[in-house]
Amino acid sequence: MRIYADNAATTKMSRPALDAMTACLEEIYGNPSSLHSAGQQAYQVLTESREKIASLLGCAPNELIFTSGGSESDNQAIRSAAAAGARNHKKHILSTAFEHHAVLHTLDQLKTEGFEVTLLDIPEDGIIRPGQIADAIRPDTCLVTVMYANNEIGTIQPITEIGEICRSKGVLFHTDAVQAAGHLEINLRDLGADMLSLSAHKFHGPKGVGLLYCRNGIPLRSLICGGAQEKGRRAGTENVPGIAGVAAALEDSLRDLPQKQLRISAMRDRLIRGLAEIPHAVLNGDPSVRLPGNVNYSFEGIDGEALLMILDEKGIDASSGSACTAGSMDPSHVLLALGMSYGLAKGSLRLTIDEENSEEEIETIVKEVTAGVSLLRKIG
Amino acid sequence: MRIYADNAATTKMSRPALDAMTACLEEIYGNPSSLHSAGQQAYQVLTESREKIASLLGCAPNELIFTSGGSESDNQAIRSAAAAGARNHKKHILSTAFEHHAVLHTLDQLKTEGFEVTLLDIPEDGIIRPGQIADAIRPDTCLVTVMYANNEIGTIQPITEIGEICRSKGVLFHTDAVQAAGHLEINLRDLGADMLSLSAHKFHGPKGVGLLYCRNGIPLRSLICGGAQEKGRRAGTENVPGIAGVAAALEDSLRDLPQKQLRISAMRDRLIRGLAEIPHAVLNGDPSVRLPGNVNYSFEGIDGEALLMILDEKGIDASSGSACTAGSMDPSHVLLALGMSYGLAKGSLRLTIDEENSEEEIETIVKEVTAGVSLLRKIG
Repeated sequence: MRIYADNAATTKMSRPALDAMTACLEEIYGNPSSLHSAGQQAYQVLTESREKIASLLGCAPNELIFTSGGSESDNQAIRSAAAAGARNHKKHILSTAFEHHAVLHTLDQLKTEGFEVTLLDIPEDGIIRPGQIADAIRPDTCLVTVMYANNEIGTIQPITEIGEICRSKGVLFHTDAVQAAGHLEINLRDLGADMLSLSAHKFHGPKGVGLLYCRNGIPLRSLICGGAQEKGRRAGTENVPGIAGVAAALEDSLRDLPQKQLRISAMRDRLIRGLAEIPHAVLNGDPSVRLPGNVNYSFEGIDGEALLMILDEKGIDASSGSACTAGSMDPSHVLLALGMSYGLAKGSLRLTIDEENSEEEIETIVKEVTAGVSLLRKIG
Repeated sequence: MRIYADNAATTKMSRPALDAMTACLEEIYGNPSSLHSAGQQAYQVLTESREKIASLLGCAPNELIFTSGGSESDNQAIRSAAAAGARNHKKHILSTAFEHHAVLHTLDQLKTEGFEVTLLDIPEDGIIRPGQIADAIRPDTCLVTVMYANNEIGTIQPITEIGEICRSKGVLFHTDAVQAAGHLEINLRDLGADMLSLSAHKFHGPKGVGLLYCRNGIPLRSLICGGAQEKGRRAGTENVPGIAGVAAALEDSLRDLPQKQLRISAMRDRLIRGLAEIPHAVLNGDPSVRLPGNVNYSFEGIDGEALLMILDEKGIDASSGSACTAGSMDPSHVLLALGMSYGLAKGSLRLTIDEENSEEEIETIVKEVTAGVSLLRKIG
């Protein structure tokens, strides 16, 4: 039995999500835009799924649009805010140096289109300070985009405070909540975000489905033009089975969340303590203001990819950072943004656990990581 | 038992596609970008699916990228060609007036960005003439985009000839083959298209998955920026179960295709003959150079939506045109592009059948449409 400790990369589908999706794949085949019975059945599933998700997130159903994933949601949110900004001659965007590439690369694109982008440095604990945002907002800032929780080190950002600052200064605020969803409660009524991105496969839902929340009154620009689906904000036949899967996954992930958070963060803390015994180990990010399941260490003098291979041999699935950049030879841009040296950043290990992991597995991980680091240091 | 005659809007998933997808949803949960075993299992499914599809379509695996659907594929193909054109100061795009809205609305957007767009009129038989394309290509034309088969009237366009013209003039050629796939053989080695869009749910595959073929050497521009998936051409964690479903669906749809085409087109011809008995009925599009399963009639003096309601009552799922615009009060832009009057275009009925339909169902459809039109004319 292998140990899966890479839940930030993707998750196994939960049983409720699987059941909802497969039932729909088998039986609900209509196009929700069609007026006939088969279409209206699909439309009903679409509507009920949207209503369920809206109720779980604390927003209105028409404030949610379904996309193909977190990257699309990020792209659309940022592009929409940029287009609105350009109309008002506001072409400055404020973000941070440790966002996901779906954000950073979209911002890179916008720079070639005449936008100015400020990427704030991240303090060593991996938590941006609201004051950094307040100080950096300019009269021509059209958007602040800061992730809810970092995908590599799991640190949780002060989203509510940032939202308040943005609101007081009249600047749109988007947050990439891809890593937070299913692990932290998201209540859009309190959060202060104007736009928020989610990805279903990060909380035991299906791959290929994302969500973009966009507060009523904020104009969205279609990334994909065509049919009038999603009230003209996202063209293409809706992925009804996938959407049914998202609704079920989100509901299930939030069920008994406080208890799950307690149990998972206890395992996380055991991992953190266990790996702290390894000499020259650096825990990346604040030890407690982080996702319940996230552990990220750098080990001096070893190659992170080599450690992954050793763990894989031992039946442990882990990662050195974002899956989206796995296999690239560059060290994590997140760790570099925290001011870490290139060499140390190359020796990093991300373990992301969740409710399916057991205390026994945690002990095995501690043992095998300790042995692996030791072996690599001997070889090196 | 209801009769589903709206396969151009969407299809039921085939058993092989369902089985491939659900097996993958249950068991293959890794992120294909992850280096560990769970990730590499997913990567293998992704690679094998891509290879299978490439072999079925006659292209190289790296010429295929997976998208969220036909609309995204169309958007990306056209935007990529436009970006390449702009770099060479070629900002004219040639297309037709009866393309899908995913094409037309993208072209509308490009017009606001300084591109000039020519939309060719369509002859009454619904088939563009290659000479129209040859005559309209200009020195500054960067792209010709013409659909393979029309989504409302099913007419098949002379794609190979158009491809030859484009190649001889050094102009990129894209075709939206969303309606053709699974119903006509697509051999990319012979077709002469530089880019081609497909959508899985139109050939008994899953919703939310599309394909974009892009001939090697042609630069694609990411519509969705972020991770390096799909060789940097489309960011976002790959929808591996959906992609496994597409491969199985495409393979199944092409199995014994000539026999299926014969059987389905015989049913189509029976429908055409049967409905021709209705007074003042106009068959839209060429009677034989059309998709095997497509029938599209306009009935003078009736409202198409009212006819759909009557058919729905009788257990028949049909449509008046594209599902993407169902519910809108405007008549079909396709029928208007053929020169049809507004009034007659409002009285249209699209029936799109496939291998799951039976000869008995065809007789029922003929009977009920005949009765429905007669009733509406009496009421009117």
